[in-house]
Amino acid sequence: MHIQQSFADEVAGHLLQINAIKLNVEQPFTWSSGLLAPVYCDNRRILSFPGIRRMVAENLADIIRSRFPGVELIAGVATGAIAHGVLVAEHLDLPFVYVRSTPKAHGLGSQVEGYAPPGSRTVLVEDLISTGKSSMAAFNALKELGMQMMGMCAIFTYDLDMACENLKETENSLYVLSNFETLLKTAEERGLISAEEKHELTAWRDDPLAWSNARS
Amino acid sequence: MHIQQSFADEVAGHLLQINAIKLNVEQPFTWSSGLLAPVYCDNRRILSFPGIRRMVAENLADIIRSRFPGVELIAGVATGAIAHGVLVAEHLDLPFVYVRSTPKAHGLGSQVEGYAPPGSRTVLVEDLISTGKSSMAAFNALKELGMQMMGMCAIFTYDLDMACENLKETENSLYVLSNFETLLKTAEERGLISAEEKHELTAWRDDPLAWSNARS
Repeated sequence: MHIQQSFADEVAGHLLQINAIKLNVEQPFTWSSGLLAPVYCDNRRILSFPGIRRMVAENLADIIRSRFPGVELIAGVATGAIAHGVLVAEHLDLPFVYVRSTPKAHGLGSQVEGYAPPGSRTVLVEDLISTGKSSMAAFNALKELGMQMMGMCAIFTYDLDMACENLKETENSLYVLSNFETLLKTAEERGLISAEEKHELTAWRDDPLAWSNARS
Repeated sequence: MHIQQSFADEVAGHLLQINAIKLNVEQPFTWSSGLLAPVYCDNRRILSFPGIRRMVAENLADIIRSRFPGVELIAGVATGAIAHGVLVAEHLDLPFVYVRSTPKAHGLGSQVEGYAPPGSRTVLVEDLISTGKSSMAAFNALKELGMQMMGMCAIFTYDLDMACENLKETENSLYVLSNFETLLKTAEERGLISAEEKHELTAWRDDPLAWSNARS
């Protein structure tokens, strides 16, 4: 996994500024898995801030242009990365599809929506990497449809060990705009968290399950 | 409901050309409701054709610019209109949110994703109007959140009577790029359907339930 150091500080700052990332050690957030965590990232908020929305899409497009020459198709993971993904596709003047982590239950709709000619050289756009499971499921769904997967790029990662594990197959072709470590540094510099809180947040990152269990 | 006659023919032609709309009287499609229909529209295919994707977003943005001066927020109905909606928001340099027809089951996620300050003058973007039920549910969800709803715009409508019924509240502020009637005219002109098939398709439009029941 490659963190784009040239963007990481700026992106982390913006995500904190617009409350796309919230930190709260005292009153942790309940994730959809049921686990408690001192951090919550909602990159859909980026969509409501046109300047930051454009900067994120341009940064992702720049990475794709330089790292994946010859890319033919941009795919976005549903639902969080549909909007970010299509903006990236628009910057690159490329076709776009979106992919669900699980197949749709009814109708003609399939796991991949849009027109994806088999063999297309494809880059997947993800809004957030937490455990890496749904990103990998989307990546594999495209592969099974016959796409030639070049790699993946994402806006933010929590730096969890299990994400590295789950995304092992793509690790050399996965580019992320910013990450948890940079976020903590930025939050501390801005006086948003104390040294003690930073310590707690790092303890969570090192073992999210133990951290949650100790508080449930 | 206002059909934009200046765009309607061209848009219908493009939707047929890229197979976003399929017509088949002999082997009808099964809709998610379980009903059989001789037509199926999948406007997500538009996303995979950059030129047509841009034309659609520009046309929707033009309508919003001229019909809804002072608009502050663009909302898209999930999942089909997330991508179209954010492209429209990008053309207008406006904030974007997306709205589910039903609330999300888990996590911090709510029915509306993104940041929508109450009181925002909002236009809803929809990819397709069939019964009008999910469009109206999304519209009402935004209203209940305190948005000032200016109106709605959509890419295509099947011209069903029940849509007019369900969308009655918004009928004077609902703009659609193309419709079933224009589609049939275009398909006939291009020799894609016979006069007899056109007759069948019209019979379906007039009473979709009876048409389906007669074939189930």
